[in-house]
Amino acid sequence: MKKTIFLLATVAMLVACSQTEPQPAASDPAEAVMANILNRKSVRSYTSDTIPAAVMENLLRAAMAAPSGRDIRPWSFVVLTDTTRYDEIFGDNFNMRMYKQSAAVVVICADTTVVRPPRDNPDAPAVQQPNGTWRDDMGAVTENLLLAVEAYGLGACWTACYPYVDRMAPVKKALGLPATVVPYCVVPIGYPAGGEQPKDKWDSSRIHYNQW
Amino acid sequence: MKKTIFLLATVAMLVACSQTEPQPAASDPAEAVMANILNRKSVRSYTSDTIPAAVMENLLRAAMAAPSGRDIRPWSFVVLTDTTRYDEIFGDNFNMRMYKQSAAVVVICADTTVVRPPRDNPDAPAVQQPNGTWRDDMGAVTENLLLAVEAYGLGACWTACYPYVDRMAPVKKALGLPATVVPYCVVPIGYPAGGEQPKDKWDSSRIHYNQW
Repeated sequence: MKKTIFLLATVAMLVACSQTEPQPAASDPAEAVMANILNRKSVRSYTSDTIPAAVMENLLRAAMAAPSGRDIRPWSFVVLTDTTRYDEIFGDNFNMRMYKQSAAVVVICADTTVVRPPRDNPDAPAVQQPNGTWRDDMGAVTENLLLAVEAYGLGACWTACYPYVDRMAPVKKALGLPATVVPYCVVPIGYPAGGEQPKDKWDSSRIHYNQW
Repeated sequence: MKKTIFLLATVAMLVACSQTEPQPAASDPAEAVMANILNRKSVRSYTSDTIPAAVMENLLRAAMAAPSGRDIRPWSFVVLTDTTRYDEIFGDNFNMRMYKQSAAVVVICADTTVVRPPRDNPDAPAVQQPNGTWRDDMGAVTENLLLAVEAYGLGACWTACYPYVDRMAPVKKALGLPATVVPYCVVPIGYPAGGEQPKDKWDSSRIHYNQW
């Protein structure tokens, strides 16, 4: 029942937000989902239009719906719009032109630890321990965000931050991330200036049946 | 033009495949995409129905549409349907009941290396080198597959294989994976027997603006 109310509320918000959606109407949800996945692309130039707050919230709602090993949910998000700080935050390590031109930059962060009882002793007190699968969760989080970006007619570009120390250090310091939290990736988002096309990556030689 | 033909062909195939889609019709593509992301769930019990070949192809087509650092595309897929081999492949390391009950198990594999000229010397001969971001790509590949599974009314469960040596060893040996290829995760897929519900993971405290 709680889920039903949540989903109804979500759908209501989506209807409110979806005015920004430029794709042709799809007659079937599976068709719409597949077309969106196949249309996702890296977008590196943007118009000066800003992102409605309700749309940004849905982008982050999609990101947080990612699967998570042991349901640890290591993710956090720092949404940047103050371009005057970008030199301090990103230095020379990133494509600054792309960032400063975008309507917002989302720094997707991950806590690399988890505070829980030891796996081999669930009755023991909680202790801080490494989370061996946080990085797998974060790839799914980032992809969910990128797919929602595509769905709302926005464009984005996944730029890696982890595991590059020279990229992570200034971001972590400037944003004041906690000791166990790393900046996983940096995603500039805006309305596409146009030009980028999705790649056709289909390759049947990558598929094996019952044996490599 | 090539992309247009590709997308038209894809849409035609999707229309052909989408008869298996049980979700209520969505009036807007963004709504359909968001609802699908929010409805994705881990499904651990399945009916005896098999997966149409055209649907399985679209699941893998969605997986291969994932973003990839430096466009390396480290992914490969081993689709398993011969349950008589599951004991040999998975041993006691996984939820075998879930695997044997599913219509198919997709072992998502990753090459951890790339054969290219060195990054600092593009004119030099290609050499085999580590790919520092293969794991990030694979999280996105797996999520794309899971979202397509949800879109077609199927259910799946992401079960981690990498980085657990005891899980990877029998899978790698039984399937004959190349030396540089690891079994990243194992995904049983089938039509849901019912019962599983999506989690509401929305948590506004995970969002920060311009500073942690």
